[in-house]
Amino acid sequence: MPAPLRLGLAGLGTVGIGVVKIVHDHAALIEARTGRSVVITAVSARDRSKNRDADLSGFAWETDPVALAKRDDVDVFIEVMGGHEGPARLATEAAIASGKDVVTANKALLAHHGHALALAAEAKGRVIRFEAAVAGGIPVIKALTEGLAGNQIKRVMGVMNGTCNYILTRMQSAGLPYDQVFEEARQLGYLEADPNLDVGGIDAGHKLSLLAAIAFGTKVSFDAVELEGIGAISIDDINHAADMGYRIKLLGVAQMTGRGLEQRMTPCLVPADHPLGQLQGGTNMVVLEGDSVGQIVMRGPGAGMGPTASAVMGDVMDIARGVRLPTFGQPATTLASPIAAKVATPAPYYLRMTLLDKPGALAKIATAIGEAGISIDRMRQYGHQGIHAPVLIVTHKATRDDVNNAISRFAATGVLVGDPVAIRIEEV
Amino acid sequence: MPAPLRLGLAGLGTVGIGVVKIVHDHAALIEARTGRSVVITAVSARDRSKNRDADLSGFAWETDPVALAKRDDVDVFIEVMGGHEGPARLATEAAIASGKDVVTANKALLAHHGHALALAAEAKGRVIRFEAAVAGGIPVIKALTEGLAGNQIKRVMGVMNGTCNYILTRMQSAGLPYDQVFEEARQLGYLEADPNLDVGGIDAGHKLSLLAAIAFGTKVSFDAVELEGIGAISIDDINHAADMGYRIKLLGVAQMTGRGLEQRMTPCLVPADHPLGQLQGGTNMVVLEGDSVGQIVMRGPGAGMGPTASAVMGDVMDIARGVRLPTFGQPATTLASPIAAKVATPAPYYLRMTLLDKPGALAKIATAIGEAGISIDRMRQYGHQGIHAPVLIVTHKATRDDVNNAISRFAATGVLVGDPVAIRIEEV
Repeated sequence: MPAPLRLGLAGLGTVGIGVVKIVHDHAALIEARTGRSVVITAVSARDRSKNRDADLSGFAWETDPVALAKRDDVDVFIEVMGGHEGPARLATEAAIASGKDVVTANKALLAHHGHALALAAEAKGRVIRFEAAVAGGIPVIKALTEGLAGNQIKRVMGVMNGTCNYILTRMQSAGLPYDQVFEEARQLGYLEADPNLDVGGIDAGHKLSLLAAIAFGTKVSFDAVELEGIGAISIDDINHAADMGYRIKLLGVAQMTGRGLEQRMTPCLVPADHPLGQLQGGTNMVVLEGDSVGQIVMRGPGAGMGPTASAVMGDVMDIARGVRLPTFGQPATTLASPIAAKVATPAPYYLRMTLLDKPGALAKIATAIGEAGISIDRMRQYGHQGIHAPVLIVTHKATRDDVNNAISRFAATGVLVGDPVAIRIEEV
Repeated sequence: MPAPLRLGLAGLGTVGIGVVKIVHDHAALIEARTGRSVVITAVSARDRSKNRDADLSGFAWETDPVALAKRDDVDVFIEVMGGHEGPARLATEAAIASGKDVVTANKALLAHHGHALALAAEAKGRVIRFEAAVAGGIPVIKALTEGLAGNQIKRVMGVMNGTCNYILTRMQSAGLPYDQVFEEARQLGYLEADPNLDVGGIDAGHKLSLLAAIAFGTKVSFDAVELEGIGAISIDDINHAADMGYRIKLLGVAQMTGRGLEQRMTPCLVPADHPLGQLQGGTNMVVLEGDSVGQIVMRGPGAGMGPTASAVMGDVMDIARGVRLPTFGQPATTLASPIAAKVATPAPYYLRMTLLDKPGALAKIATAIGEAGISIDRMRQYGHQGIHAPVLIVTHKATRDDVNNAISRFAATGVLVGDPVAIRIEEV
């Protein structure tokens, strides 16, 4: 039997302790499945005195994760600290420079520095694995990189921030406005210290950029992800979208177009009867579309001790089994520099506006839409509320530029109250 | 760059031609992702003269798949012929004996001979891969064997026969009886030559037995799968189940219990709002439950040229990349001999019966159920149809034995018309 695989674990928060538990509780199972034992030799965290729900007495302790990363008795450096600069970055770089394999749950680090880290690791013959960085316990990196490797990937989609999906589905089920549910989520501890990482779409955008790199063989380009958070989503839009058979999701979409790589993480409408529309609460979902396989949907817990530690251990056990692949599925030196394409793939749009109760108001809006080259699929005018009438329109496929053009024409009609809302309907 | 990986392809039906197309169309992509070229050197099928929608002129031809399996210019033997005896078995055995790796889509072969084949392959240092054998294009074997390797698997469930799910969902959507939809499916070419492979649950049972072997580290034991087909499912039950918030699925469930390994492929009720309940048409779904990860749901096409060839190519590309794992995730010599447990895990049950319009009829039935030790969760009596009244009951958790006991007591009540129906409700 080969020598034990020795892990150095940097970060003893929820995920780190989850890893400690699995390595301890499932030692026999891990050995049966990998043909070797897997042991933790050393750990690192800022505060040694903190009470943690695990026996750490058998592990060497390093206060500095960089020192942990360099230890001779560590084969695999596990980074579950978080943060895309500072200790996480320095320690990961040190681990690679010291010839260690790396398993990380750090989406921000890889979204910002993934390409440089992959180049460094591959130059050293080392691997970086990051299943835990995307969609928690769902083994989607593996499915995309390996299971669907024979496909040209057409599109990758995902609801990958559980907090946003919790907020949106809770708004609908309880009929509450955004601010109130946001506050609930904060009190429940669902939000990052900087809530904009969640509700601004940044965290989910990090994840999308990693999926896109694998899917399209391109360098990670998080800066090119079009980001729009959920803060502007109103309970009215959630309810009206439901009336029209849709749900609103913070949906990530990456697809290669003739103009380049589109990456967006924005609120979208999806059909209520598609698995994406049916997704409730904090659960994550990733949709992979390949030219041969068609559409694969994967659903599961996107965060938490067990699911994230499960993903970390899947990577560790691959390394124990001798599975060694390039970080993004092909050598980092061969990844293309993507042309960042402004999102221009046509889609139906949901438009909501309030009209004054004037003769011909609706006709004027319809005319403006037609003049922008957009045709209307469905239109619904609700009963007047005082002198105002809410109107919903679902268009046929149009580009965002066309939609903006139509909206700019609305002003001249003189029948509009307030600003119209336009949300893309992703065809799934 | 390493030498090309040379494939010998046995079977030129839909799936085989799908593999030919991917290898041809995606040669550059495959090389970028695996670091080597992948080529087909030789093919085999019964009828060389048959017109096939692919250029086969560059490949050597063998009429006998055993001869193909033994060729010196073949590294990987791909078996997409089907059948669990005869040429498929002989050729697979010959390939292993000749030191080839094997990629197969043949669930029947592995369900019957998987353990012996795995032992033979591992003794030779060869791998057998079978992603395409279970749930078509869904990379579930990989997710279970690798992605969730750090988990003790608690339960595996799946809707893995698209024809059955098509029939059941079509019965509901069109309000048609089983026989009529079965005939439709036959005319559409959805059914195997022996339809009992589909509607009898055998094909799906084969798949379940393979998942169970990986999940629980046990020898494949298809003979221990409790099989019950969908032929007895009536449109009445589908409609009444829907009334109670359920859908009827041919659901496979494997779980390790204190009594041994339960494996069943039987009609079950599942909640209409769970992804299993929402699954329409020929799509497949597999649910994996691990102690750390919780519940992972995977959904995708379970058959067809593209999806199945995608799965075959995922396996081929793993081999090209040097990924080499035991067939069932741990060495075949270490797989346990499972104790086949009679299904006795308690579950709620759906009961449907018709009662005579007599005073106290419902009370007598309720009493009989209570005397069998079962408590009733919900009961619904419909309006009388002549002198008969349909009654639905959803019980609290009970064993099948208890349910059978209750049913045997019904006869003595003298209020029952015909035979009651009892269907397990799987808690998901």
